[in-house]
Amino acid sequence: MPNSTNKTTSFTYIRNLTCSDCGKEYASDAINTYCPDCQAPLLANYDLAQLRQILKPAQIAARPRGMWRWHELLPVQRQSNCVTLGEGDSALLKLPHFSQRFGIPNLLLKDESNNPSGSFKARGISAAISKAKELGVTKVIIPATGYAGQTLAVYAARAGMQCCIFAPKTSPAAALEESRLAGAEIVLVDGLISEAAGLAGEKARAEGWFDLSTFKEPYRLEGKKIIGYELAEALNWTLPDVIIYPTGGGAGLVGLWKAFDELEALGWLKTTKRPRLVAVQAKGCAPIVKAARNHASFCDFWTNGRTIASGLCAPKSFADQLILRDLYESQGTAVAVSDEAILSTQRLLSEADGIFPSLEGAATLAALIKLIQQKWIQPAEQVVLFNTGAGLKDIAAAFAACPAWTPG
Amino acid sequence: MPNSTNKTTSFTYIRNLTCSDCGKEYASDAINTYCPDCQAPLLANYDLAQLRQILKPAQIAARPRGMWRWHELLPVQRQSNCVTLGEGDSALLKLPHFSQRFGIPNLLLKDESNNPSGSFKARGISAAISKAKELGVTKVIIPATGYAGQTLAVYAARAGMQCCIFAPKTSPAAALEESRLAGAEIVLVDGLISEAAGLAGEKARAEGWFDLSTFKEPYRLEGKKIIGYELAEALNWTLPDVIIYPTGGGAGLVGLWKAFDELEALGWLKTTKRPRLVAVQAKGCAPIVKAARNHASFCDFWTNGRTIASGLCAPKSFADQLILRDLYESQGTAVAVSDEAILSTQRLLSEADGIFPSLEGAATLAALIKLIQQKWIQPAEQVVLFNTGAGLKDIAAAFAACPAWTPG
Repeated sequence: MPNSTNKTTSFTYIRNLTCSDCGKEYASDAINTYCPDCQAPLLANYDLAQLRQILKPAQIAARPRGMWRWHELLPVQRQSNCVTLGEGDSALLKLPHFSQRFGIPNLLLKDESNNPSGSFKARGISAAISKAKELGVTKVIIPATGYAGQTLAVYAARAGMQCCIFAPKTSPAAALEESRLAGAEIVLVDGLISEAAGLAGEKARAEGWFDLSTFKEPYRLEGKKIIGYELAEALNWTLPDVIIYPTGGGAGLVGLWKAFDELEALGWLKTTKRPRLVAVQAKGCAPIVKAARNHASFCDFWTNGRTIASGLCAPKSFADQLILRDLYESQGTAVAVSDEAILSTQRLLSEADGIFPSLEGAATLAALIKLIQQKWIQPAEQVVLFNTGAGLKDIAAAFAACPAWTPG
Repeated sequence: MPNSTNKTTSFTYIRNLTCSDCGKEYASDAINTYCPDCQAPLLANYDLAQLRQILKPAQIAARPRGMWRWHELLPVQRQSNCVTLGEGDSALLKLPHFSQRFGIPNLLLKDESNNPSGSFKARGISAAISKAKELGVTKVIIPATGYAGQTLAVYAARAGMQCCIFAPKTSPAAALEESRLAGAEIVLVDGLISEAAGLAGEKARAEGWFDLSTFKEPYRLEGKKIIGYELAEALNWTLPDVIIYPTGGGAGLVGLWKAFDELEALGWLKTTKRPRLVAVQAKGCAPIVKAARNHASFCDFWTNGRTIASGLCAPKSFADQLILRDLYESQGTAVAVSDEAILSTQRLLSEADGIFPSLEGAATLAALIKLIQQKWIQPAEQVVLFNTGAGLKDIAAAFAACPAWTPG
């Protein structure tokens, strides 16, 4: 009876990686990026059947706070390789005044703004940098509009790695400055995130940099998925009716769905009911919304994307098929909101309940208001919004001219 | 045997308030501010003898994360009055590269930057606003250079209170803008925090606003002290050799010392050894440093104070006697650092270990370097620094001209 001790013996129970498209297996103890045959993301698999026997939620609850208390379900073999700044265990907050105003009493907001470097990106980057360190990577590169680059810069500094960021010129100034302070090399690109990605990819191949673009390596998703574990734990191993998530690269939504799959396999959920997922995009760059309207299985490239919410300015996610698959499977939907609505709800939430969300986080509130008006969300449903970052980061954008748009 | 259940029955075990100078008693279930006879702060007292019997650290560890898991030692009677944004349980981080560079292996940093609104102020304001709500307060006022005002603005919004902030014109712009977004009224003052305090006090008396200035009400200190509880818990109920804290109003240092007193009375500490406290100030505004040099029991008012670290620009704390008493009792010291050293260590920590501290937080690193050089700190000692806020808040200041100063 190897399991009779009811204790885990390995730091991780990762088994391998598989292509999200063709299912081909890849090793998790060597550097792998994405499936070259399918040009599709790799997904990490764990020995969930064994963990179901030997790991209990109470053990995880008793550990010191933070994302790494879920280490059996994260990809790192040795604890000494964990590069951490205290990410995870973000607050799940009620929005009493906002709830009352829009008649939705069971409303919660998972506030990711208090992660290191002020955004949810810390989770994925912590996992990916830790695994990269374990596999011997010494220089990392990323195309980024702001948050992700800044976060990579600080984690790379902490890991003692070189860091290079390809950023659109329109990226928020504070994020670029914080990246420079952490010693990263910044290359400003006259174009969108997609152009930055192309140039970063070229440099990576030419000079041997490891590319941490969303879904172009398998482990940022693993850090991100822990949001789903924390949510289920906070809701006493139930899940809400609806989850509204701002969607650029899509790791948040895909990570949540992966967490729910894993939680089901672990036998930890008290319910088989899954939430309906809502992907929120900006009207000026809404490839997922367009694809979902046609029930397409992938996105067209969105040309000339434009929105003040830089995290939403992603013309085509590398994981578009995964995002759309999870949306459809959840009976969810995708919603585009205007920049005016984003700015207006940012201010509204700040005044109402004292949370100053990122523009991307504010977009989830704007989408909520729309979906209530469309009766897609019923007043009694439990809805969870995600504020992905601190509004402070875009303070300049928050004061951009805003036509008199009033929500509700 | 009323204690046989080993469970607390009240949400708080506060008993009363006493003047820190004359010892006169005040009620904790009525609005009280400071001792009018002595013009001195009031301190909250708890029934620690009873708590020693019925409350164990393991109970607190098992509760959901955040400051309010220590509610028996906080002043609020009813849980429904707690105004929370998820403050507390900040990370205690190693600084591997910085430690190595300066030869101080047992170095830790308590990173308060991931509190709501990006600073440690969230703790004190959460406690004070919650108690104010319980006592029926509906409008709050504060003189503030940045962080405290911004934090009060968001907590007041959440509590549904009116908020007015008197801020020196030189306050960081982002803090003021975030306060405005949360619906606060901002009055810009052509002067220092001391002038702002005078004007805010006048308005408070004339119009019945409740003044939340540091130490002019008893409960911000109570929220702040929880940092000391968390630190002791993280160090397995021991205390470090040295604590270095940036000191403006002084609630951090006084709160830590109060926590250690209470922990001793609760019988939770494994050691009777207390840390030596270090108060860090800026050379341009160093009233505590000057007083400590003369072993004075109070400060002179520091005229024409000037530093880029706005949180350190406090010409005379209302609790100067308490700060100095605790410093002396701890065998501690007070250190003044230059603005150049602050900027330089801010950048250094960011590059070395991926933490971009506030200017006030960076000041503790500059002080550490000085104290190592002076051999006041020995290489084997365990030292805890406090980063009180996110550097992002002062990003403009961080890029101010900085003469080529190199630490170490």
